[in-house]
Amino acid sequence: MTAYQSLCDVVSEIALITSTESVLGWDQETYMPEKALEHRARQLSYLTGKAHGLLTSKKTLKLMERAETEMPENPTQAANVRGLRRDIDKATKLPQKLVEEESEVTAMGKAAWAEARSKSDFAMFAPHLEKILGIARKKADLFGYEDEPYDALLDLYERGAKTREVAALFAKLRPQLAEIACEAVAKSKKVKPGVLKGRYPIEKQQILNREIAESLGFDFEAGRIDTTAHPFCTTLGPGDVRLTTRYDETDFLSSLFGVMHEAGHGLYEQGLPGLDYGLPSGSAASLGIHESQSRLWENHVGRSHTFWAKWLPRAKELFPHLKKVTLDAFMKEMLHSEFSFIRVEADEATYDLHILLRFGIERRLVKGELAVQDVPKVWNEEYRELFGMTPPDDRRGCLQDIHWSMGGLGYFATYTLGNLNAAQLFHAAKKQKKISNALEKCDYAPLLKWLRDNVHSQGGALLPQEIITQATGKPTDAKWHIAHLRERYVG
Amino acid sequence: MTAYQSLCDVVSEIALITSTESVLGWDQETYMPEKALEHRARQLSYLTGKAHGLLTSKKTLKLMERAETEMPENPTQAANVRGLRRDIDKATKLPQKLVEEESEVTAMGKAAWAEARSKSDFAMFAPHLEKILGIARKKADLFGYEDEPYDALLDLYERGAKTREVAALFAKLRPQLAEIACEAVAKSKKVKPGVLKGRYPIEKQQILNREIAESLGFDFEAGRIDTTAHPFCTTLGPGDVRLTTRYDETDFLSSLFGVMHEAGHGLYEQGLPGLDYGLPSGSAASLGIHESQSRLWENHVGRSHTFWAKWLPRAKELFPHLKKVTLDAFMKEMLHSEFSFIRVEADEATYDLHILLRFGIERRLVKGELAVQDVPKVWNEEYRELFGMTPPDDRRGCLQDIHWSMGGLGYFATYTLGNLNAAQLFHAAKKQKKISNALEKCDYAPLLKWLRDNVHSQGGALLPQEIITQATGKPTDAKWHIAHLRERYVG
Repeated sequence: MTAYQSLCDVVSEIALITSTESVLGWDQETYMPEKALEHRARQLSYLTGKAHGLLTSKKTLKLMERAETEMPENPTQAANVRGLRRDIDKATKLPQKLVEEESEVTAMGKAAWAEARSKSDFAMFAPHLEKILGIARKKADLFGYEDEPYDALLDLYERGAKTREVAALFAKLRPQLAEIACEAVAKSKKVKPGVLKGRYPIEKQQILNREIAESLGFDFEAGRIDTTAHPFCTTLGPGDVRLTTRYDETDFLSSLFGVMHEAGHGLYEQGLPGLDYGLPSGSAASLGIHESQSRLWENHVGRSHTFWAKWLPRAKELFPHLKKVTLDAFMKEMLHSEFSFIRVEADEATYDLHILLRFGIERRLVKGELAVQDVPKVWNEEYRELFGMTPPDDRRGCLQDIHWSMGGLGYFATYTLGNLNAAQLFHAAKKQKKISNALEKCDYAPLLKWLRDNVHSQGGALLPQEIITQATGKPTDAKWHIAHLRERYVG
Repeated sequence: MTAYQSLCDVVSEIALITSTESVLGWDQETYMPEKALEHRARQLSYLTGKAHGLLTSKKTLKLMERAETEMPENPTQAANVRGLRRDIDKATKLPQKLVEEESEVTAMGKAAWAEARSKSDFAMFAPHLEKILGIARKKADLFGYEDEPYDALLDLYERGAKTREVAALFAKLRPQLAEIACEAVAKSKKVKPGVLKGRYPIEKQQILNREIAESLGFDFEAGRIDTTAHPFCTTLGPGDVRLTTRYDETDFLSSLFGVMHEAGHGLYEQGLPGLDYGLPSGSAASLGIHESQSRLWENHVGRSHTFWAKWLPRAKELFPHLKKVTLDAFMKEMLHSEFSFIRVEADEATYDLHILLRFGIERRLVKGELAVQDVPKVWNEEYRELFGMTPPDDRRGCLQDIHWSMGGLGYFATYTLGNLNAAQLFHAAKKQKKISNALEKCDYAPLLKWLRDNVHSQGGALLPQEIITQATGKPTDAKWHIAHLRERYVG
């Protein structure tokens, strides 16, 4: 047996443990009774320790070194060796003390954030953010970076991304996004609201959601949809991808777009090479690629005119009070845009502005160019510049997101990278007549096949930017997303 | 740290693994999509191997020996040492080859049984049963026994039980049970059927089931009810007991008694000492004790006149077509008795006859007094003697149960031991005025407290017969079950 093969066996064993953790995690979010929490935490921490122990054992490290010396000729295998080295480095470069400190600081940070948010009192959270930043900078130093420490953090979520490049992309985006958002909001103000008012029974919403997820190609023999407070998608093993959504009885679009978004993630997971489960080549390439799939299905497919020409009649069967709503009126309401203080409530036309704001602040925080205590002031100024209004309090301003409290600095950028990649991939796919013709008939099989061939089947053997470049001919660019938004919201 | 404490740490670690297996198992039965099966089997077999490895490691065996030498003075700790020795012996006395052979033979056996049953062809199953018996005899020899090999098998499910004693108990039971069953069936023939006919929507059944389970004391913050093909109760950790039931839209009593039965198991599990989770003192004493709890709540509480005096009005609110059904007519229908070929469809008055039949055949098979090929003939003769009719085919005769195909020889007896213990415990509890008065008002808290104090809190630190004797003053006797059946079905 080659070192590579032995290494794959270790990875399979680790994947058995981590996929078991995923089952425990899914159950905890969906069905677990509350008094089970303590034991569940113990089970999870035990398994995490076991997986970490396996990944960083002397045996694994020796195998790794041998595999690197022998370096397989097969490019996927070579990519797996490099990817596993990355995983091992991530797991070994941080001293145990720092890992424990991070886990403690973020546990306290999350609790403090929750209270600070509810009281809209940034001062309560500030000392915790200070500590979290300190740890993030230490991590960046230990992982190493080219230009600035933020590179190392960004790389945790978007492999190979450089702060400088992302910043350039976002800078190009910003004025155009701001202009589109303003026009979209102004247009929406002219639309009479309330055409979709009414009660949407949950059982009926579930029927529609399932029919639509199936029509996209989501395989319900290898997955399911449940209900949680916050929608997510998780993979419990090859052949087992679970989506969740939440229901609002006054708004069927909320659960439906939740399902389409998570089904986008799910289709990606269902399309990863199952035989490579656990290896880099059997795993998602990055969060930005993952998000490109969810946004593609949610926004490019799900918010399109063609899509609703087919599905509005079906919605009318399930929700008879919609009977008199015309497709035109429905589309105007569904694409309604307005400035909101809260990112997770933002619509497609205004969403990325929220990300640009966060990216800029995070980067300056990590660099040390912005002091923690000044975050609320800078947030509100920047927000005013982008949206023309000021958050009434920090709860609806710099305290709204959980990410920083969890130490997730570097994460936000992947949301907008996902939007840009979604537009670019969708544009490239539609160049094929077969695909665009099928889309006109709401037949998604050719589109899904294209994504399977060009994105899903690659797993994480290539870098995100290699995937985008191979699939579309160019690295990520803002122009297709801009063109898409302009056509839909200004056009 | 004493050897006992170190041993407890090993047990805690094993319990983290086995309780994780329980989560995987529960998910597999409730929500897992079909294509997940292969990976799930891999996860389970990996964890089983890890738990087995820990239990039988050299380190554990040495700790065990040291703990036995030091033998704690505390009686619960001493019982745990003895119980763990038993577990370790069970896990080490069988050579790996035999364990593998058993797993293979029963896997084939289950498949062959399923086909044989569907074709009602005993000859297809006979060679498999022969092999299963051979393995059971080998196991009995390796585990050791006093009088006959069946002792060793019985002991796997009912610790400390002796074949000879159980046989004596059953022999005493048999003529009286047969007489009661005949009278119950004759009485039921005079009752006009169909008073409960109608449609019972599942959501309404779920409301009633939950209200009733709550009224018994089942803690829904530490448990839940889901839907499966076969009802069961499983514990995923302290504070996490999951029940399942199945629904028949034409019969609300089917899901309800399923829930009351499983809630009886669940109340026991919720009452075990949580701090001793994983240790013998934190685990159920035996299957016979477990079954006593399910039967007590299902039959003694749930099929009583007082119970339905309270709950029939509530059922009428949920199922308005029951409005004109009197309590008397309801009780007659609910306690309807008839001879059935199938054990799992049998009613309370006839159930134990099915067990007596199986116990006798199993015992003779293991002893070698009965040849496998003669099972159908003997089954049908015995059945005719007990029930006055002959099974039309083996599907409704000796092929109906899965137990033998899984190697579960020795299991059946615990069902009737459970019935006997249920009656005996219920009788003892009711001697307390406070409990019997509360029962008249459908207040189950004092009864549950008595069971907690006398049964649940003991865990498995005592032998089943020690628990029954301490709680009721006598070892298991048939007379209370007989008296109960006579009062309810003949009286």
